[in-house]
Amino acid sequence: MTEYRRLRVALLGAGAVGSQVAGLLLRHGDELADRAGAELELAGIAVRNLDAPRDVALPRELFTTDAEALITGADIVVELMGGIEPARAHTLLALGSGADVVTANKALLATHGPEVFEAADRVGASVYYEAAAAGAIPIIRPLRDSLAGDRVVRIMGIVNGTTNYILDRMDSEGADFADVLADAQRLGYAEADPTADVEGYDAAQKAAILASLAFHTAVPLETVHREGITAITADMIEEARDAGFVIKLLAVCERLVDEGAESISVRVYPALVPRSHPLASVHGANNAVFVEAEAAGPLMFYGAGAGGVQTASAVLGDVVSAARRHIAGGTGVGESTRANLPIVPIGHVTTRYQITLEVSDAPGVLATVAGLLSEGGVSVATVLQTVAEPNGEEGGTARLIIGTHRAAEQALSATVDSLAASDVVERVVSVLRVEGE
Amino acid sequence: MTEYRRLRVALLGAGAVGSQVAGLLLRHGDELADRAGAELELAGIAVRNLDAPRDVALPRELFTTDAEALITGADIVVELMGGIEPARAHTLLALGSGADVVTANKALLATHGPEVFEAADRVGASVYYEAAAAGAIPIIRPLRDSLAGDRVVRIMGIVNGTTNYILDRMDSEGADFADVLADAQRLGYAEADPTADVEGYDAAQKAAILASLAFHTAVPLETVHREGITAITADMIEEARDAGFVIKLLAVCERLVDEGAESISVRVYPALVPRSHPLASVHGANNAVFVEAEAAGPLMFYGAGAGGVQTASAVLGDVVSAARRHIAGGTGVGESTRANLPIVPIGHVTTRYQITLEVSDAPGVLATVAGLLSEGGVSVATVLQTVAEPNGEEGGTARLIIGTHRAAEQALSATVDSLAASDVVERVVSVLRVEGE
Repeated sequence: MTEYRRLRVALLGAGAVGSQVAGLLLRHGDELADRAGAELELAGIAVRNLDAPRDVALPRELFTTDAEALITGADIVVELMGGIEPARAHTLLALGSGADVVTANKALLATHGPEVFEAADRVGASVYYEAAAAGAIPIIRPLRDSLAGDRVVRIMGIVNGTTNYILDRMDSEGADFADVLADAQRLGYAEADPTADVEGYDAAQKAAILASLAFHTAVPLETVHREGITAITADMIEEARDAGFVIKLLAVCERLVDEGAESISVRVYPALVPRSHPLASVHGANNAVFVEAEAAGPLMFYGAGAGGVQTASAVLGDVVSAARRHIAGGTGVGESTRANLPIVPIGHVTTRYQITLEVSDAPGVLATVAGLLSEGGVSVATVLQTVAEPNGEEGGTARLIIGTHRAAEQALSATVDSLAASDVVERVVSVLRVEGE
Repeated sequence: MTEYRRLRVALLGAGAVGSQVAGLLLRHGDELADRAGAELELAGIAVRNLDAPRDVALPRELFTTDAEALITGADIVVELMGGIEPARAHTLLALGSGADVVTANKALLATHGPEVFEAADRVGASVYYEAAAAGAIPIIRPLRDSLAGDRVVRIMGIVNGTTNYILDRMDSEGADFADVLADAQRLGYAEADPTADVEGYDAAQKAAILASLAFHTAVPLETVHREGITAITADMIEEARDAGFVIKLLAVCERLVDEGAESISVRVYPALVPRSHPLASVHGANNAVFVEAEAAGPLMFYGAGAGGVQTASAVLGDVVSAARRHIAGGTGVGESTRANLPIVPIGHVTTRYQITLEVSDAPGVLATVAGLLSEGGVSVATVLQTVAEPNGEEGGTARLIIGTHRAAEQALSATVDSLAASDVVERVVSVLRVEGE
């Protein structure tokens, strides 16, 4: 075997991903050394509890509770603890001592990205985070490097496996959200507290990371508009299917141009996606990121968005990249945030909508509804009226499904309020945005 | 605007891709400088004929016929001439003078890759070639970096847009190869001499590049088994459809394990792909690369495989990467070919097959055919018999469609010979491999 320079790798955390990373580092050490041009010595694994059970059998002597001591003297620090503290402090300590950092910590990057990247720049180190945006799917390098000479127009990502699993089963089985969620929890697809997934927090963190990269702009997490999927009903999914759509939780990152001035919008919400769109056929817990760039046109990246060993693949790719950079010399490249585009609030975003109303089945109702839409500045593209009570008698309730042309969220929202307040509208059943048309 | 260090970019070639690269470099100069952290000065464009028409209007003073003079003193040389010479000499000259090289030249890399990469290593320069394998689709960085810590098991790529366009139209229209090819030539999807595309030469070059990267092994082009699509008939496509398949020209790069010893196989041929496979829904001239890795699981990368402006996106991403490396310092990382796995000839590859035979519709025919298959060591998975002449009378001809279990190419090929020589077999209609099941 070739003699390589030895690099010390410190691993922080030994959960689902960390234990797989450690196992693969130990098992494929020789092969990874050939790839990296450096021997990757697993110097230790910092954990809170030395006796916690692990997914992978690992030598006990590698474990330590003294993360700081482990970090000091490491060439590459792999942070897989998750959460903000002490992950942030450890990351800054590592960068401060000149180590490169590999992280899968989307929460940390989405909330403290600029601080972390500045700390890396100060010492010429690099931060690698392929695992932080879409699990095993290579999306960071394509956005950061392959598309660096292009202009990204739009990203639409299915970046949360749990919600895609739930929506996909609701779609294929006609089941209710609560039932599928309970089953997903039983099967391990959803956590006991599913809030981070089903309320879109996880997707919003990933959207912030993707948008920052794609638009060379620091995107604070609080500027990401976020809606979850808890209000999605079996009825809404059935209605969507009838209209040729599937409902997906999307992370949308969009470049907007208004009279030559550019801005961006970053938002997470359940949206209607045409069944013919490539994203519509992303099933189960899989993820996919659809990217449209000015020159490259549409691109799609598909794969497993989560899972311990899958995510470990992305982490180890980053470890090899960090090692190669150590051997090659030179400083880290740093993040390009020089475009620094303004981020518009959701109210100024325009999309197409589908509004479903329950209305009284009486003469003049359609005219009233159309009038309110027109007053609100919302232009109607399609109207479908279905009788909710199939006895055919007037005086019951009917359903109006209205597809709009592009409308500003603000105008749409005010118009929906006036529809809800109208005498002829019994209930606003759903208001969903349409993406991917 | 920030003051950046200036890097001189020399462009060789101003064809469909080159003229777009030049246009984008000039049009988006300020933005690219922000991305790269360096001003990218288009120092000149070397062409054979100063007066040839260009796709993009470019300042005449940029053009020169003296490529050598342009290369000398450039920091980044972008080689978009295509072909082996003088592209090879220019590339070696550029690397010899310490410049980084960006190339879309798959022919050069597939035939002289090791020479080019060694020349880069000698001076610590880098060769970037995102545009050489699948046009605008980022596949080089994912394979080279993101999956560097994983083990690629298999790649199945639709990497030639022309053949996918032809096969897709044959599939959707039931048209014949020759008719669709003529139409594709008229519409600009196929060249006047379509040999490189329809005979699989282009795909074989890309397969060699992808396999080299994925398996860390230098893969000489002559070790790539290659078959084109000229023998594919409308009948074969219809029969495939009836059986739930679509015919795609695939570049297959596979890691084989035999009693613990690893080897690889690289091959290009039209194959039956199940309609439920993600590759089956790659339509028109689009490309897609399906990658299976041990830890990451299945991944797919989809987009435009060709086109001037699309490919220019990949080239410019490489130019920005090269510029960032110049600014960051350090040497190029070099290619990892240290695994150096043996490459097995096609005869030793095992796949599933579908064999279609025209046989006499007489008693005992199936038994004879089954006997020959069994003698050849080919195990039968499915048999479908259809009567070719639908008058129902015995004595006519019938069609046997035989799906095999995995069989070695060598055994299969010998068995097909004995079938062809048999009295009961009137004609071997087709023998197609099945991939993606």
